Amino acid sequence: MIVSITGATGNIAYSLAFRVASGELLGKDQPVIINLVDIPEMEAKLEGVKMELDDCAFPLLVKTNTTSKLAEGFKDIDVALLVGSKPRSKGMERADLLKQNGKIFVDQGKALSDNAKRSVKVLVVGNPANTNCLIAMKNAKSLKPENFNAMTRLDHNRALAQLSQKTNTPVQGLSKVAIWGNHSGTMYADLYNATVNGKKALDIIGTEFYQNTFIPIVAQRGAAIINARGASSAASAANAAIDHMRDWVLGSEEWVSMSVPTDGTQYGVPKDLIFSFPCTVSNGQYKIVQGLQHDAFAQEKIKKTTDELLSERKEVEHLL
Amino acid sequence: MIVSITGATGNIAYSLAFRVASGELLGKDQPVIINLVDIPEMEAKLEGVKMELDDCAFPLLVKTNTTSKLAEGFKDIDVALLVGSKPRSKGMERADLLKQNGKIFVDQGKALSDNAKRSVKVLVVGNPANTNCLIAMKNAKSLKPENFNAMTRLDHNRALAQLSQKTNTPVQGLSKVAIWGNHSGTMYADLYNATVNGKKALDIIGTEFYQNTFIPIVAQRGAAIINARGASSAASAANAAIDHMRDWVLGSEEWVSMSVPTDGTQYGVPKDLIFSFPCTVSNGQYKIVQGLQHDAFAQEKIKKTTDELLSERKEVEHLL
Repeated sequence: MIVSITGATGNIAYSLAFRVASGELLGKDQPVIINLVDIPEMEAKLEGVKMELDDCAFPLLVKTNTTSKLAEGFKDIDVALLVGSKPRSKGMERADLLKQNGKIFVDQGKALSDNAKRSVKVLVVGNPANTNCLIAMKNAKSLKPENFNAMTRLDHNRALAQLSQKTNTPVQGLSKVAIWGNHSGTMYADLYNATVNGKKALDIIGTEFYQNTFIPIVAQRGAAIINARGASSAASAANAAIDHMRDWVLGSEEWVSMSVPTDGTQYGVPKDLIFSFPCTVSNGQYKIVQGLQHDAFAQEKIKKTTDELLSERKEVEHLL
Repeated sequence: MIVSITGATGNIAYSLAFRVASGELLGKDQPVIINLVDIPEMEAKLEGVKMELDDCAFPLLVKTNTTSKLAEGFKDIDVALLVGSKPRSKGMERADLLKQNGKIFVDQGKALSDNAKRSVKVLVVGNPANTNCLIAMKNAKSLKPENFNAMTRLDHNRALAQLSQKTNTPVQGLSKVAIWGNHSGTMYADLYNATVNGKKALDIIGTEFYQNTFIPIVAQRGAAIINARGASSAASAANAAIDHMRDWVLGSEEWVSMSVPTDGTQYGVPKDLIFSFPCTVSNGQYKIVQGLQHDAFAQEKIKKTTDELLSERKEVEHLL
């Protein structure tokens, strides 16, 4: 299988590529070719990452290619991890961020459409991930919407970690955590169906703690990491990308949060957004968990994150 | 099992800790506690690394502890990955580098001796790794010499990678590569017994290429990575540490290069050095491969790297 990683000279990709090569993404019996993709200015550095991958003598790594040409980087690929995006610089408006990144994902969507395998699984990690993913999907005319996901697995894992700590329970004892909506501060970290060793999570941690402490901690976790480390989450973001893609390829009966294209029939969310839902996966196909109930609190949360996604979409309408 | 990582806020540890937590060091069925150890100035950053480990929701990671106290960081541990060391600053003499790092490893050797499990496996990664390891070993009065190794596995893997590229053969087809001596430019990358799909490697690549191109490429690979990436090897060093320790714990019939304590009976190398040999491992015990022949070229190479280790030892004699 061929795995393409964009933004390959960045910190997330540096945490990601070596774990992909060691077999943690696709399994310990699946040989892999890795395409490291970045902008032309980064070609020397790309070669350095490739040299280090070579120096690991990974038995499963058949070959590493480096390129700044999308047609080459996406040729016949099975998996795309779209990590590269422009970070928000000081004083930059959100609308500008959306537009600058939008151009990157127009090109990537087209190049995926023209070059990747028809079965390609594309995960957008680069922020604003959901709207970047929407742009790529809309520009990939010859691929299906369901080829495209954005990553809310880091939020999902952060919610698991917080619930694990608060209840002093290993993560294996936790089930049915869900992230709804956008990978941003508006996301809705949902514990209404979550269980801790089979018991209702909210009965254990209490609604007051859940709404006023748990939700803000999960939403602001990225900033807390930057404060502590002096650098943004890289290894945990890379790990979430591995979790998302591994489950997408190899399956998951347990609920996992995936940002997927909407068709207007799911939980009242409008058509043509990339929206996070609790999903299960089998045979490489994700399915949104059906029939969940939302109370007034949940409905308000979901409305807020939906509105944000709609306004992001408006900013990039000309690119769709 | 408890794994302690020093220099835990550095780049190598950042590549290392997440792979340890995911089960790549000790196996996918071995729960693990990780102790992240660094100097007091780094405590906030340590907490940031711990937060990211938490945020991965690794099923095998029972707990992450952070500390700047060695007694705490080494308490009852099974595995120590001693990554932290002072890098050589501009204009610093090698003797000064040895002495400054020496002090760190005196303290770590004593703390290991006083706190770690009697069966602890200690791998020194921080440079100058072999001599740092010697210092730690000599100061760990109540542990055995064979508790201590230094890392030449990165050199070993680099040799595999170069041989793989030159012969266009996957690494699985390569066997009996060996690194002798010090983890430094004087190391002897030995292909005299190496095979490529069962055929003698030197018959394929030729002695001239081996001596004049292969050996210098392997010896200078670290500098080549810095040139290309603009940063020193981190992920490939972390990977080599995982390879070394995994093989030490779980075994390897294939030759692997390990820097181990000498007792004066092996290949004419003086007693009380930490010297890299080809080894095999079973039941958690490494064994130096016996009965290999060295021609004049090999003997000269081994003498040179031995002399370097002797001169390093002389610089730190007062710490032993």
